Amino acid sequence: MEWINHSRILIVGLGLIGGSYAKGLKRLGYHVSAIDTRREAIDYALENHIINDGYTEVDPEVVGSADGVIFGLYPKVFVEWIEKYQQYFKPGAMLTDVTGVKGCIVYRIQDILRDDVEFIASHPMAGREVYGVENSDDAIFRGANFIMTPTEKNSPQAIRWVGQLARLLGFERISVLTPEEHDEMIGYLSQLTHCIAVALMTCSDNEHLVDYTGDSFRDLTRIANINDLMWSELFMLNRESLLKYMDIFLDEFASLRDMLRDGRVEELREKMRLSTKRRAYFNKVKN
Amino acid sequence: MEWINHSRILIVGLGLIGGSYAKGLKRLGYHVSAIDTRREAIDYALENHIINDGYTEVDPEVVGSADGVIFGLYPKVFVEWIEKYQQYFKPGAMLTDVTGVKGCIVYRIQDILRDDVEFIASHPMAGREVYGVENSDDAIFRGANFIMTPTEKNSPQAIRWVGQLARLLGFERISVLTPEEHDEMIGYLSQLTHCIAVALMTCSDNEHLVDYTGDSFRDLTRIANINDLMWSELFMLNRESLLKYMDIFLDEFASLRDMLRDGRVEELREKMRLSTKRRAYFNKVKN
Repeated sequence: MEWINHSRILIVGLGLIGGSYAKGLKRLGYHVSAIDTRREAIDYALENHIINDGYTEVDPEVVGSADGVIFGLYPKVFVEWIEKYQQYFKPGAMLTDVTGVKGCIVYRIQDILRDDVEFIASHPMAGREVYGVENSDDAIFRGANFIMTPTEKNSPQAIRWVGQLARLLGFERISVLTPEEHDEMIGYLSQLTHCIAVALMTCSDNEHLVDYTGDSFRDLTRIANINDLMWSELFMLNRESLLKYMDIFLDEFASLRDMLRDGRVEELREKMRLSTKRRAYFNKVKN
Repeated sequence: MEWINHSRILIVGLGLIGGSYAKGLKRLGYHVSAIDTRREAIDYALENHIINDGYTEVDPEVVGSADGVIFGLYPKVFVEWIEKYQQYFKPGAMLTDVTGVKGCIVYRIQDILRDDVEFIASHPMAGREVYGVENSDDAIFRGANFIMTPTEKNSPQAIRWVGQLARLLGFERISVLTPEEHDEMIGYLSQLTHCIAVALMTCSDNEHLVDYTGDSFRDLTRIANINDLMWSELFMLNRESLLKYMDIFLDEFASLRDMLRDGRVEELREKMRLSTKRRAYFNKVKN
């Protein structure tokens, strides 16, 4: 499937990210359908012209007419959906997803999938600390990172297709990783940071913190507002990588604590200089 | 000293915060002088009309003509400055500071200070991850928190004076804490967050993280760009409170790690819900 303007796109799972994809693609002129079990999500999206048509149940005709299908489902539901409804896909349809874990999903889906459709996995590195299509906004993609995780089962066409999707939506840097590299990276960059935010927020039950805080605490706890169902599933599906980084972080943090306790100021400063140097790679690009 | 428009203000230490105070106060019509040992800081501030006049050495006449003096120095230098130059203060002058630690500073300065001037300590809860008057911007104060830490040596006039200063500069919530309460709060809200950011940033030496990251890692490491000289001094001066919160955080984080390791998903979700609930106190006011 090429990204030509009469392509029909189906979004399965119209949450924050699915809804943001829908907004961006509809604005670009694509025909966007959506399936979501939440009646309110479909109604909201129709009323706000985020989609062309929407359904709360799986309609074989709608699935069968889509050239491209984007899955915005939780990982386990995603696999179940493919098992149950893949029979309806149009031959030649291209599938991708937005799932935050890859190793446990990609091979599994490619294994069970019909031979005449193709699944190329991807992960848009953008989000908000709020949920639902009601908060969707395709501006969050502008300048953001996009990771695709093709396997040897994927064709060059599929890789081009998902790369073009990312560029159409405004993503800036598009990276190719293996599913395993992706999960390791995400264990560190995304899942570990969410664990830190949760632990920091649950350290104190003082309700007046908001009167005393500066921006740093706000920044570190923005993502402490967390969807427990989705993130606990993502954590469990990437347990090995996440545990590895949690332990590395615990060691780093404990060693900082020891430096402070022992008054080893020069070592403390050295850590701060290292941290400043490493953060500088980010400043060069975008802050 | 009342905040009347012909008041003369002296800023001692023209860094990011001192410079931002200067900008705000000069714009409001006050005569603002500054002393800073860095020639470039003074030159920059003069060229950009951030101050009316500036000096790289302590000029007795300049100190003696100030109605209000704001100290933007590192804690130890601040105490030394008072010891050495307090003889020049105008009788009745009002002094305040922007120092990030209080217990070790406030009583000490009030003890050694002349009886005919008054020091009322305060801490503007605003900053940026960059330094120097060149990055100063009084917009950072708008809507921010401001903490003052009066002692029994302070007069109601001084408390009013520093509260008025905060309101003039655009701070929104002005809180009164004891120096000890302040240090405990800051150990948690500010210093612990900086330790976390440093430890998170030093966990990996991968230089390509910037290509894969989403906003959460950026948010959590913004303050990993850290002035090692200033922050190591602040940490050491508040070691007890900071160590206490580092240990609480280590426990919280390790218990999250154990829940994940043992697959105790319901407990993990409960922590996430608690974290979401507590973060909501912040959302109500400003995100």
